[in-house]
Amino acid sequence: MTRRPNAALEVAIDELRAFGCAAYECVGLTLEDATTVVDVQLDADLRGVDTHGFQRLPWYVEHLWANRNNRCPRFEVLRESPGSVLLDADNALGQLACVRLVERLIPKAAANGLAVGATRNSNDWGCGAYYPRLAASAGFLCFATTTSVPTLAPYGTRTRVLGNNPMVFAVPRGDHPPVVLDMALTPVALGKVMRAMAENEPIPAEWGFLDTEGRPTTDASAALAGIIPAVGGYKGTGLAFMMNILGGVLPGGAHGSAVGPGHRGQFMLLVSPGLFGETGVFLEGMESAVMQVKAAERLPGGDGPYLPGELEERRGAEALARGTIRYQRSVAQDLSTMAESLGIEPPAELRRLT
Amino acid sequence: MTRRPNAALEVAIDELRAFGCAAYECVGLTLEDATTVVDVQLDADLRGVDTHGFQRLPWYVEHLWANRNNRCPRFEVLRESPGSVLLDADNALGQLACVRLVERLIPKAAANGLAVGATRNSNDWGCGAYYPRLAASAGFLCFATTTSVPTLAPYGTRTRVLGNNPMVFAVPRGDHPPVVLDMALTPVALGKVMRAMAENEPIPAEWGFLDTEGRPTTDASAALAGIIPAVGGYKGTGLAFMMNILGGVLPGGAHGSAVGPGHRGQFMLLVSPGLFGETGVFLEGMESAVMQVKAAERLPGGDGPYLPGELEERRGAEALARGTIRYQRSVAQDLSTMAESLGIEPPAELRRLT
Repeated sequence: MTRRPNAALEVAIDELRAFGCAAYECVGLTLEDATTVVDVQLDADLRGVDTHGFQRLPWYVEHLWANRNNRCPRFEVLRESPGSVLLDADNALGQLACVRLVERLIPKAAANGLAVGATRNSNDWGCGAYYPRLAASAGFLCFATTTSVPTLAPYGTRTRVLGNNPMVFAVPRGDHPPVVLDMALTPVALGKVMRAMAENEPIPAEWGFLDTEGRPTTDASAALAGIIPAVGGYKGTGLAFMMNILGGVLPGGAHGSAVGPGHRGQFMLLVSPGLFGETGVFLEGMESAVMQVKAAERLPGGDGPYLPGELEERRGAEALARGTIRYQRSVAQDLSTMAESLGIEPPAELRRLT
Repeated sequence: MTRRPNAALEVAIDELRAFGCAAYECVGLTLEDATTVVDVQLDADLRGVDTHGFQRLPWYVEHLWANRNNRCPRFEVLRESPGSVLLDADNALGQLACVRLVERLIPKAAANGLAVGATRNSNDWGCGAYYPRLAASAGFLCFATTTSVPTLAPYGTRTRVLGNNPMVFAVPRGDHPPVVLDMALTPVALGKVMRAMAENEPIPAEWGFLDTEGRPTTDASAALAGIIPAVGGYKGTGLAFMMNILGGVLPGGAHGSAVGPGHRGQFMLLVSPGLFGETGVFLEGMESAVMQVKAAERLPGGDGPYLPGELEERRGAEALARGTIRYQRSVAQDLSTMAESLGIEPPAELRRLT
């Protein structure tokens, strides 16, 4: 079989899972914790959110190896009530902290109708859609947010004190996958600006970036050094402030400019669809709301309409049916190199690279 | 004292309050209910949100007079738990329904640490900032949203099935007024587009309006007939979908294209700042978060930085200190006409108009 040198590699999901677990066990995670983190990261790859998938595996392994993250975190419940729990994540990987938090919140929401949880001393949660989807697959509506390193300046200023804190909502739909909105607070992913900078291309003026003096700019490096716009201007930075309160101040953790590795926080709310009535009635209402969106008339030349998260869901189903995830050759090469340095067996498809 | 014919009129707040209560009593509200509605509406005027203040008083009075709103609503608790309540608002004014909901949620949040409430068969809540501020002045963090009549099309379509559903957050600050973010999901208030249409002026392309064929337009009437943009494109319409679920589907009320007079719904979450730790620690954290924003370096030529809601708060304090609210002559004239038709005494300043 001949290959184009830059063609993506198709790697079997089962082999990836075993490989990821082996890598994390190598640097000291328990098999249970390794499995949890791998599930979150592969799920991102499955759904096409590849910036949060195994592309980052070598990076996380490196962090654990260097003890920048805690390999054996002792999660401590700092405060608990029938409807709430506060978890000290002890510098665990954010994926681990967030899954453990949802696991504790689900029985509370089941018993109580609603539950609120938070973490402190946590880390980057990776692809945030995972945790509310976990709650939704257990039958609950879920909202979640996280603090993140400061990249946004309060409206009208140039000092970066607020994170581009994502907001995630997931709502169950009975037999169908949940509807999932996972959104950071900038209208344009910063990765696109970085790519423009790497390729020496201007960025569109409509993206709304300003230089450090507050002047509109189409220069990618001036934009990255300057003021990153938030959705809706002061509305987006206002949301960033509020998410900073929920994920940082309320749990008593780091907030604003103090947010960094080992000092992130997450906030989650779970609500039972039966809190105000019969769950069956809620699910009928959801189908009606979904139908209204799907029946909306498409604009000329467009596609869709799509529900929030529908495209990711479709990609995930396709990848599962195929049984493989596609990786860029550079990512595959990094995984192969990591395997070699850890002395573990990579998936068959990656072995051919070395 | 000479007057310019179009100068704003300064009307004493105390007189306005008595006048508003008299007007609502005239059309059948109890004094208690009238006082509640007047408090909400005058608060909007005080804070400069004059589109939601007494400008609408004659309109609300007309609705009550015509029995389009229920003058003597029987609020029915449809479902209740220690941390939740669902209220059937019986086609009451939205202001009344939302205040009664917050009043029921505050003791629940105090006892339980958190509380969630909702209404169905409610109406337009007017200026949404009021209700979370009420919760915040009782010491709680609050998030609230409402359904509204469909004006937004799902992303990529031209069928209006989603409301421009506002999201409101309020966070207490001890001795200082709370921080309040009150935002609808469009980047530009539709009132600005209407004004441009009235004045035969084009609107800026950056506002992002599309005509019915999905083409960018600067023509105000084509914009109003066409596709109204949401903040961050699919992010804003995704939020509109989620708010529609919280305010419509979850409480078992009308949602999406079925939302209309007498069939709105509201959703509110209250969280105690002491849920995860000492309230004093939370309040210190808030002051630190606030200081970070206030210390951010202002862009050349700008003003601020302002906290979310700070300008409204300042306007409110100024109006209270002055003891008056300023009304455009056309609004004052409408109030005066209404007074005459109801046979009630208008405030002194308005009497001179007749």
